[in-house]
Amino acid sequence: MIKASVIGATGYTGVELVRLLDKHEQVELKYLTSQTYEGQEYASVYPNLAGYCTKECVAGDISKIVAESDVIFVALPHGHAVEVAKKADAQGKKLIDLGADFRFDDGAIYEKWYKVAHGDHELLSKSVYGLPEINRAEIKEASIIGNPGCYPTSVILGLAPALQHKLIEPNSIIIDAKSGVSGAGRKLALTSHFVEVNENINAYGVGNHRHTPEIEQELGKLAGESLTVSFTPHLVPMTRGILSTIYATLKGNWTTAEVRKIFQDFYHDEPFVHLLPEGQWPHTKWVYGSNNCHLNLLVDPRTNRLIITSAIDNLIKGAAGQAVQNMNLLFDLPETTGLLVPGMVP
Amino acid sequence: MIKASVIGATGYTGVELVRLLDKHEQVELKYLTSQTYEGQEYASVYPNLAGYCTKECVAGDISKIVAESDVIFVALPHGHAVEVAKKADAQGKKLIDLGADFRFDDGAIYEKWYKVAHGDHELLSKSVYGLPEINRAEIKEASIIGNPGCYPTSVILGLAPALQHKLIEPNSIIIDAKSGVSGAGRKLALTSHFVEVNENINAYGVGNHRHTPEIEQELGKLAGESLTVSFTPHLVPMTRGILSTIYATLKGNWTTAEVRKIFQDFYHDEPFVHLLPEGQWPHTKWVYGSNNCHLNLLVDPRTNRLIITSAIDNLIKGAAGQAVQNMNLLFDLPETTGLLVPGMVP
Amino acid sequence: MIKASVIGATGYTGVELVRLLDKHEQVELKYLTSQTYEGQEYASVYPNLAGYCTKECVAGDISKIVAESDVIFVALPHGHAVEVAKKADAQGKKLIDLGADFRFDDGAIYEKWYKVAHGDHELLSKSVYGLPEINRAEIKEASIIGNPGCYPTSVILGLAPALQHKLIEPNSIIIDAKSGVSGAGRKLALTSHFVEVNENINAYGVGNHRHTPEIEQELGKLAGESLTVSFTPHLVPMTRGILSTIYATLKGNWTTAEVRKIFQDFYHDEPFVHLLPEGQWPHTKWVYGSNNCHLNLLVDPRTNRLIITSAIDNLIKGAAGQAVQNMNLLFDLPETTGLLVPGMVP
Amino acid sequence: MIKASVIGATGYTGVELVRLLDKHEQVELKYLTSQTYEGQEYASVYPNLAGYCTKECVAGDISKIVAESDVIFVALPHGHAVEVAKKADAQGKKLIDLGADFRFDDGAIYEKWYKVAHGDHELLSKSVYGLPEINRAEIKEASIIGNPGCYPTSVILGLAPALQHKLIEPNSIIIDAKSGVSGAGRKLALTSHFVEVNENINAYGVGNHRHTPEIEQELGKLAGESLTVSFTPHLVPMTRGILSTIYATLKGNWTTAEVRKIFQDFYHDEPFVHLLPEGQWPHTKWVYGSNNCHLNLLVDPRTNRLIITSAIDNLIKGAAGQAVQNMNLLFDLPETTGLLVPGMVP
Repeated sequence: MIKASVIGATGYTGVELVRLLDKHEQVELKYLTSQTYEGQEYASVYPNLAGYCTKECVAGDISKIVAESDVIFVALPHGHAVEVAKKADAQGKKLIDLGADFRFDDGAIYEKWYKVAHGDHELLSKSVYGLPEINRAEIKEASIIGNPGCYPTSVILGLAPALQHKLIEPNSIIIDAKSGVSGAGRKLALTSHFVEVNENINAYGVGNHRHTPEIEQELGKLAGESLTVSFTPHLVPMTRGILSTIYATLKGNWTTAEVRKIFQDFYHDEPFVHLLPEGQWPHTKWVYGSNNCHLNLLVDPRTNRLIITSAIDNLIKGAAGQAVQNMNLLFDLPETTGLLVPGMVP
Repeated sequence: MIKASVIGATGYTGVELVRLLDKHEQVELKYLTSQTYEGQEYASVYPNLAGYCTKECVAGDISKIVAESDVIFVALPHGHAVEVAKKADAQGKKLIDLGADFRFDDGAIYEKWYKVAHGDHELLSKSVYGLPEINRAEIKEASIIGNPGCYPTSVILGLAPALQHKLIEPNSIIIDAKSGVSGAGRKLALTSHFVEVNENINAYGVGNHRHTPEIEQELGKLAGESLTVSFTPHLVPMTRGILSTIYATLKGNWTTAEVRKIFQDFYHDEPFVHLLPEGQWPHTKWVYGSNNCHLNLLVDPRTNRLIITSAIDNLIKGAAGQAVQNMNLLFDLPETTGLLVPGMVP
Repeated sequence: MIKASVIGATGYTGVELVRLLDKHEQVELKYLTSQTYEGQEYASVYPNLAGYCTKECVAGDISKIVAESDVIFVALPHGHAVEVAKKADAQGKKLIDLGADFRFDDGAIYEKWYKVAHGDHELLSKSVYGLPEINRAEIKEASIIGNPGCYPTSVILGLAPALQHKLIEPNSIIIDAKSGVSGAGRKLALTSHFVEVNENINAYGVGNHRHTPEIEQELGKLAGESLTVSFTPHLVPMTRGILSTIYATLKGNWTTAEVRKIFQDFYHDEPFVHLLPEGQWPHTKWVYGSNNCHLNLLVDPRTNRLIITSAIDNLIKGAAGQAVQNMNLLFDLPETTGLLVPGMVP
Repeated sequence: MIKASVIGATGYTGVELVRLLDKHEQVELKYLTSQTYEGQEYASVYPNLAGYCTKECVAGDISKIVAESDVIFVALPHGHAVEVAKKADAQGKKLIDLGADFRFDDGAIYEKWYKVAHGDHELLSKSVYGLPEINRAEIKEASIIGNPGCYPTSVILGLAPALQHKLIEPNSIIIDAKSGVSGAGRKLALTSHFVEVNENINAYGVGNHRHTPEIEQELGKLAGESLTVSFTPHLVPMTRGILSTIYATLKGNWTTAEVRKIFQDFYHDEPFVHLLPEGQWPHTKWVYGSNNCHLNLLVDPRTNRLIITSAIDNLIKGAAGQAVQNMNLLFDLPETTGLLVPGMVP
């Protein structure tokens, strides 16, 4: 059994990790930390787990937790994972960071967009960007995983085959993304207040959202050249789900059928990525509660653009589920262990 | 492996059955019938199952389906299960009806409230009301299960300990119930049209909802005397979940602690029924996607009334999950097989 | 023109007052106070008013505000209106408190349920409970109005004809109420966090909600005897609207038609209270954005109970609209001035 | 008083027209037609209007209705307005079509995208595209108004200043639009079924939505050259509101401040179009229930793109409100009559 601990277990990605790990047949939940709820039963904070999880929330004696765990999931806001990672690295333990601290190859880019010092640029060289469909081999050998952001996951999976096959102009990419409110976390804010969000949609972070450099870094690697994208996120009155609608200019003449073939081949063996039948555009509801990514695409001959939509559950494939998928890879388990659950409809 | 078929597989209780049975380790899905979608892939109707369920929808050659199945789930509107049940009975197969046709001891009551002929009153004597927490022993021996209605499930579980212990005046019971829209099914209707339901709540079926006689039948058995209740359902702008708020006058003087003790003892060994800590009132979200029923209660000394709230997921404990629980009992499997999933929060 | 100021103008009842008063043909908006947004344009806080309201938020120099206003609306949490009312009283100005400080005849009951000292019990004798349909004559002569709570408004309008005609047993009344989230205000709280509220319903304040004594006080006056009620509020995933479902045992034999006749006569001349046609149960959506109260009722002969449902917009008839209605009465304007707007459907 | 009739009065644009016209001080509602509800009181179909609208639904004796009306609003699906318009034209009456039949200069384009014969191409020459901010002068002289589609209204208002000032490359325009469900009307469909829409977002009509040629026609006129756009609509789980996010490549170097100045000048005298302060991105909730259009924009120097978001209430500025604005112009009334209502927040 893999002994797993979650640092920051009472946020929304935290509870999703707990729910997934609790039923994972190869995992023993070790420590769940929470500053706010220290000493309280975890199920009193999340009563959905009454009768399932009997752990208590503990304070963060990180050294002890690392020592007694095989893998540490860090589900804290950015800027807090490096200290944990140093300890894990020193003790030879695996660390999966669900924040942004280990997603960048270049610490300077992180510091520019996140406006905090990184703390340990060298550790970055030991970390891998944890998108299994792209970096599977590297992930297996890594000790620190930078678990991808929710938006970047949906975008990179949507564009990878097109970029790798050089179908599109790299600098023509426009990403219009829509997210449910759980992506903003459990922290109280007027922008997550029910009355402000309900019966409303709005763009936010236009031109400056922090997932932009992460998207550009990974798409650039797939394209084989650096590129710049427009990325505009929107807040949708729903709890879970991200839909990214992606526009790019085609380099030559392609038919929808030809591009579909390239995508089908690319994702042929992937258990979690599904190209839907032609004309059936992804609904976030169809991936609700699952680790799946649903894709569809169209070549629009009027504009010679490729249009792709990509749907994930932001808390699962966009966070906790992908983290478990990475853990499975790190520990040589079948990659789908504990994750083969379809979306819940209705 | 139990060979299971679902008659009427493309409604909302149908797809929930398919989702639960598909991952049930002791079940082989045999036939999924649909009049509307005959010949189409099931996953084209419910794309959440793309990559999971590879069955096709078939027309209803009931005799063949019964012959090749060990258990038949009927997920049709009321009035259509009797014909299937006759065939199942003749061939010695188990049948679980998720409609109302086998919920009543007295066919005349069914006919009065549902305004259709029953078709075979005798078969009723071979059927059992499938609420495991109350009728476990009888269910194990039955061949036909009348799977309880969603509202009655929440109400009976909420009141059983109080009635059995004769804490309350039977004729004082008032049930104010609130349901998500999936309870109304996938059939198109203005009352399920998004724009009419969103940002709205209303009562419906006041004084004449068909779940009333079902509730009265089962509560009457628990009370040991016939009784009459007020039952008022409401439509809430959400997909899943039922919350029943139940009021009853206490017969004597009881404290909240004393009544809690009685409920705790009553449900002590039940895997799916949880009395929450004092003051933590059930949220339907906490049982979302699970087979759980969450309860809480209060003795209000000002009015000498017992107030209980009871939350279930109407599609799981209120329909498909309970049907699987009944199947487990019918086939001597551990009762929780395939059902030990906590609610999904957030 | 009536010079009107709003103390606490940036909460949800505050902005609703501003919206209604801004278009009221007999009102000049004078001061809008806000601690949080002092010095900012009101329309920067509520951009829906861009192009409509050009006022700035000011700090609360109450004496000056009172001196320069004819009527002061207090839209603060309870416990803060008494100090303003003293100043208004001293200067002979009208005050309408949308909080609880002037709703009670007996200051001791206020202090028991609200757990703060009242500050000036004598002022209570100068205030009137501002429900125009019940207290119209007294309101016209008053200087301080205790604007009713949202739940009590829906309940008292629902029960007044039945109690005044002594149709029902006073102590048999059970009120099961459902509210949208705006009733909890703009203050950040986990219980108003989108992700916690969406796709959920729950009871709260069971047995101890502060609107209980207000309801009992006013219903007791209508009944001509003191009484005790069960009152259970619920939180519904919508922004606006309250639906109260009310149960009471009839004293004698009545038909639905007879009771309807009593209600129709009682509300015959009321512009804002509508008894819907038999069988058409109120939807909160139908009163959304209006000062209307929609009612319907049924005599259930099986239980000899009267069942009433009552729908209002909690921010309008349950708060700001009713306050404007009271202002109209205080200043001898036609009672409906600025309020004859139907509900917005869809 | 202007005598106004509504053909097809019980759909969602119909009821919005009725609500706006009913309170319009210069309008007398004459006939409300409905095939489904002929002979029923209008307020029984839309109970929000109980106590406000006392009209009955009538069948469509179009000749009589036209004869007795000064203006006829047609709120029918496309393909049904031409017959009414012929009669109105013959009798010299004004007609405002809320469908697509009079939006196109070239009947052939209509027929290609809508796949029906138009019926009278000549009448098109007598009609004007009814977007007052662009075509005010022509509207005043017209007899037939093609009231703009909801999506096109949001898009054209968002782009007009940029195109007229030749700031952007015409063929670089990408429009990612998001709409509430009321845009799909009251007609029952699985895609408007609550359970399918709630907690979901999806694209639809990708590459082939019928508003595309309408957008291209009007943007082309503003640009002074024909152009092609990418237009992708999405369905959002809310009732009202459209948000269009628009991307276009700038022709030269512009700052946000410079482009803001151009927009401010362009809309300086417009009562319904508001450019919000820099950084405050439009929320559809802020225009809910109003005839307003809220805009904001950003020049992104990283990509040299102009990003604009534009929010309207699809039923008001996107349909009924704009129709009333057009009527005001046709009858030389102040353009804002009956429409100066701010958005309803919360």
